[in-house]
Amino acid sequence: MPKGEIELIRRIRDLLPPSWRTPVPADGRGPSRPGVPFGDDMSAFATPSAETLWTTDIITEGVDFLPARHDWHSIGWKAMAVNLSDVASMAAHPLAALVGVVLNDKLSLEDAVALHRGMIDCAARYNCPITGGDTNSWPQGTIVAVTIAAQMSPGLSPVTRSGARPGDMIFVSGRLGGSILKRHIHPVPRLDIAESIARTLSPTAMIDISDGLSRDLGHILESSNCGAILDESRLHLAIHADAEALSARDAVPALDHALHDGEDFELIITLPGNTVASSRTAIDALGLIEIGVIQPPGQFSLRAVDGALRPIEPRGWEHFR
Amino acid sequence: MPKGEIELIRRIRDLLPPSWRTPVPADGRGPSRPGVPFGDDMSAFATPSAETLWTTDIITEGVDFLPARHDWHSIGWKAMAVNLSDVASMAAHPLAALVGVVLNDKLSLEDAVALHRGMIDCAARYNCPITGGDTNSWPQGTIVAVTIAAQMSPGLSPVTRSGARPGDMIFVSGRLGGSILKRHIHPVPRLDIAESIARTLSPTAMIDISDGLSRDLGHILESSNCGAILDESRLHLAIHADAEALSARDAVPALDHALHDGEDFELIITLPGNTVASSRTAIDALGLIEIGVIQPPGQFSLRAVDGALRPIEPRGWEHFR
Repeated sequence: MPKGEIELIRRIRDLLPPSWRTPVPADGRGPSRPGVPFGDDMSAFATPSAETLWTTDIITEGVDFLPARHDWHSIGWKAMAVNLSDVASMAAHPLAALVGVVLNDKLSLEDAVALHRGMIDCAARYNCPITGGDTNSWPQGTIVAVTIAAQMSPGLSPVTRSGARPGDMIFVSGRLGGSILKRHIHPVPRLDIAESIARTLSPTAMIDISDGLSRDLGHILESSNCGAILDESRLHLAIHADAEALSARDAVPALDHALHDGEDFELIITLPGNTVASSRTAIDALGLIEIGVIQPPGQFSLRAVDGALRPIEPRGWEHFR
Repeated sequence: MPKGEIELIRRIRDLLPPSWRTPVPADGRGPSRPGVPFGDDMSAFATPSAETLWTTDIITEGVDFLPARHDWHSIGWKAMAVNLSDVASMAAHPLAALVGVVLNDKLSLEDAVALHRGMIDCAARYNCPITGGDTNSWPQGTIVAVTIAAQMSPGLSPVTRSGARPGDMIFVSGRLGGSILKRHIHPVPRLDIAESIARTLSPTAMIDISDGLSRDLGHILESSNCGAILDESRLHLAIHADAEALSARDAVPALDHALHDGEDFELIITLPGNTVASSRTAIDALGLIEIGVIQPPGQFSLRAVDGALRPIEPRGWEHFR
């Protein structure tokens, strides 16, 4: 990194859309705000609502990405997208992002710029200005730490993990499994449908699938103090083609890939059972796939086609195993 | 880390003051907000003002701290304090913090808890609830990424780096140099005086000293398109005892330590020259030390006792040198 931190920051600043460098509040007060110039000790964003949501998610070399296999633009995209996926899972909309990096000191300036370009492209795609960040280097692996602030649109409340109730029906927003083949490095946060789901279907709980269906649905069950039964015949309709392809290679059933693989970044949604029938058109228009039903606490099972129940063992990703 | 991420998160949650786990908006609406439970995809904090400031700062093993020399509680304190110092440098007050960690996977659960306890103790000292975070592990060095959100109190505007003007007088909030002897691992963000400075003295620019006086004042000069002359006889009054002690060891003049050492986390403040005379009582009460005067662009010099000027070469810390 011969040109130094200052040159990197200059290159990053030149990549930012001009509107990000002179942010204007979204509350109609116009551009008369005092303003904090790019690169000051803190950066600023408008918070029209009295409550702000935020999240931070760090991705690390060797765990979440491999520089030998993944290009730096994609790595940057992923770092931003996994955070935006958390925004989707609350049915919120993003306000602004901060990007912190610790770069291996052998990384070229061009690669460092490509990493930031990936973050910027993803953030721009989802209307989320990057207002600032932190650049560091060291002789070890690269890590990328993104923080995103978000708010709820008028009339919506945050959709948490803890509102599922027995009798709620369980949906996913797309097909699952085998993301490791390629999709995991270029995730698509479901911001396209998250607010619509909240507005039209009144979900009781929602979460994005980062650790795997079994584990992330498990988070809903734990937070909501519930159990669940998934329906094998329905789950077959939620298997991604990548899960089939991976199954052909590793002989693990595609259904198991759909159940346990991580990094699909689709949403798990629970809907009150009595509203599902009358909402079928909306559910279909949003592309939601029904996979099971919430139960009283005590079981988390897969119902086979013959009706037999076998327990599901959440076995997605946990750090420090 | 035998007990796993879930156990660590449980231990951290148990350390949080109860009021942090059920945050109540600061806007008088009372505890009736929908609420986001601890550990959900995002966390929430009240944003009574229409503009929010935020910053992120990452500290890394081997660069900012050494586990062989520093205890984990102090490392956690430092990670939080360096971010709160950025809040002070804007004359803002903190609203909430997020804490992201990537822990070396040989780190014991007790050390990981001590790290978080240090962050929590520092955040609690400055009334800054930690609302969430991210835990990761890997086989490499530990890094800690803290993000803080802040707002301005009514009547105050952010004090940036870019408002200094020729004729402004330059002050520091305390004595400088030699922080490496000990103070650097337990920094004290100057939130105790930052809002008072903004309210009583109308500073034109402010920054905290993380990289060193020469470099951080250099940031003000660059952002404000100005130069500066520091007065050697005045600067002698801003030399910390640690700078003298370090000088006795390494034979580098104590003045040079005060000029170039990093991590003092005192504030540099510029005040309009014509208001200083009438504000002397307030300036003294706040403990500010005058060290020089802002000049038109083109020089950054130290004036010796005999009046001779010699250029100051900023040589604090830059990553990727």
